[in-house]
Amino acid sequence: MGSDCDGIRQRSCPVPMAQSDRILLGHGSGGRLSHELMRKVFLPALDNPVLARLDDQAVVDVEGLRLAFTTDSFVVQPLFFPGGDIGSLAVHGTTNDLAMGGAQPLCLSAAFILEEGLEVETLWRVVQSMRQAAAEVGVDVVTGDTKVVERGSADGLFINTSGIGLVPDGVHLSADGARPGDRIVLSGSIGEHGMAVLAQREGLGFEGPVESDSAPLHTLVAAMLQTPQAVHCLRDPTRGGVASALNEMAQSSGVGMTIDERAIPMREAIKGACELLGLDPLYVANEGKLVAIVDTAATEKVVAAMRQHPLGRQAQVIGTVQASSPGVVKMRTSIGTTRIVDMLAGDQLPRIC
Amino acid sequence: MGSDCDGIRQRSCPVPMAQSDRILLGHGSGGRLSHELMRKVFLPALDNPVLARLDDQAVVDVEGLRLAFTTDSFVVQPLFFPGGDIGSLAVHGTTNDLAMGGAQPLCLSAAFILEEGLEVETLWRVVQSMRQAAAEVGVDVVTGDTKVVERGSADGLFINTSGIGLVPDGVHLSADGARPGDRIVLSGSIGEHGMAVLAQREGLGFEGPVESDSAPLHTLVAAMLQTPQAVHCLRDPTRGGVASALNEMAQSSGVGMTIDERAIPMREAIKGACELLGLDPLYVANEGKLVAIVDTAATEKVVAAMRQHPLGRQAQVIGTVQASSPGVVKMRTSIGTTRIVDMLAGDQLPRIC
Repeated sequence: MGSDCDGIRQRSCPVPMAQSDRILLGHGSGGRLSHELMRKVFLPALDNPVLARLDDQAVVDVEGLRLAFTTDSFVVQPLFFPGGDIGSLAVHGTTNDLAMGGAQPLCLSAAFILEEGLEVETLWRVVQSMRQAAAEVGVDVVTGDTKVVERGSADGLFINTSGIGLVPDGVHLSADGARPGDRIVLSGSIGEHGMAVLAQREGLGFEGPVESDSAPLHTLVAAMLQTPQAVHCLRDPTRGGVASALNEMAQSSGVGMTIDERAIPMREAIKGACELLGLDPLYVANEGKLVAIVDTAATEKVVAAMRQHPLGRQAQVIGTVQASSPGVVKMRTSIGTTRIVDMLAGDQLPRIC
Repeated sequence: MGSDCDGIRQRSCPVPMAQSDRILLGHGSGGRLSHELMRKVFLPALDNPVLARLDDQAVVDVEGLRLAFTTDSFVVQPLFFPGGDIGSLAVHGTTNDLAMGGAQPLCLSAAFILEEGLEVETLWRVVQSMRQAAAEVGVDVVTGDTKVVERGSADGLFINTSGIGLVPDGVHLSADGARPGDRIVLSGSIGEHGMAVLAQREGLGFEGPVESDSAPLHTLVAAMLQTPQAVHCLRDPTRGGVASALNEMAQSSGVGMTIDERAIPMREAIKGACELLGLDPLYVANEGKLVAIVDTAATEKVVAAMRQHPLGRQAQVIGTVQASSPGVVKMRTSIGTTRIVDMLAGDQLPRIC
């Protein structure tokens, strides 16, 4: 650690940040500011090869078993929104982080930070929702914790869920597995979770229903993994949306990616709402979708398997991986131009999960 | 769930609480209010036999391996205090929850909830401290998460650490393992963590140094487990102190306990500070101590092993387990009387971990 600082101690050591020496909302966005915090604060200190892979889950070898391990805190505001709530979201989010490593979930933990004055009934509703979500996934919440902080020291209710899963033999998924020639597959329509939370928070009405897509993806993943060696990487495009997920995989794998705007499924209500608010749906969070990097030869088979699954009916090949422009994601737009799809610095929408 | 409510729907369904239909600080105390929340909200919903054991960690069987899994959120205020900080505390706390199940820690997760405006340097110091603590324990932080909430929506910085450990063959520790005739062993002097945090928070000066005892207990536990079948239960007396830990074990095991006040090690500075503030040291949090229920025949050997370890030098037999008065903890006081050591309803000291 010290060596990074020695030359600049007089300026702003120990951690000179690009924009501010204070935490900004954008540091929680999953975008460039989040990555800066990771690179400058977390990774240098907690240095180890598993963390450094920056996957959504760690895969650790324990006596010959490959365990997936993941953690996520949920601070979504409001707590309840069309299509879900903080409780179901916490269960789905952690299940999906395990699933993106190819793991089947074994068990979850749940830790609550409660603000003094929260209605017990609100907590009860959230816990009931967690129960239902966990039952649907087929996992138990086996351990937990509750802390209470004074009124004004937290915003109602935060939940951390961590999870353990088991990675089957022969499954090796990591963000660095994309290879030139691979196809980029998206499991369904984008932007629904983020727009549902935003609509609820701001009291916005859109044309047509806008509901979160929050759902557990582990059985969809299991169906995709039936074709051996076909799937190279998986990501669920949550914070930062499809754009950030693709950028992360392109950077980790050292490849370029090109996607086709017209191939990306999107519901009309979402398209309209994004246009109205000036939001780019590629950056809006999803909680029940995945992006897969798939071997070309197996793509047809994988997409067919996805379309058999309720959560993959709209699965589409949306682009290709190439050797040129490593780390860069481009999009052929619906009007025929090509533009770069960069990672945002900060948030379009904070507190979305 | 429904059946509990049907008869009382008109009154205060779904969860009639003893004191208030809102969350109180005491619901995070580890005392009676915490147990009420557990019994009425969490357990009925997240019903499963592992969670229902209410141990500090879940032990789950995965393909023949016995994995310990635990989670804890840390909301201590202030973030830095004599003898530690929220970062080292988070690593020690989760290590110790694994150790109390007899597990050796394998890996940790770390999830941060940051308040907008927090100084990056503060976060950096906390993460450095986590690094050092994890290195001392010998575990890696293999996965993590960062969320940022708006100014005023959290108090600086909260950390969740979850952990996975491996329980060795032949080790079976649970809060329900205490048997009449067993001895109660305490690893060292009490009250130091709670008083150190309080002193820092309130700007109090005491006679003599008051430092947190925050420390990882897994190697002490490993030394104790060298004597097979000798240790029946372990608890680290954190929130709620030694009194709450004993009450939990007495209730889970359906046994009575009697402790001897004069046998309980306590530093003079802590004793003086507690007297000054009217606090009962039996309820003050410790973060580097354990209470063990030990087979009588093996007690001498276990205590001798503990005293060989730097964190067990002051290990003492402080009491006995009996069949009478199940669920009740009594204390022979230093003035020769006997009193019941009950579980407190709420907190003596909130935000201590």
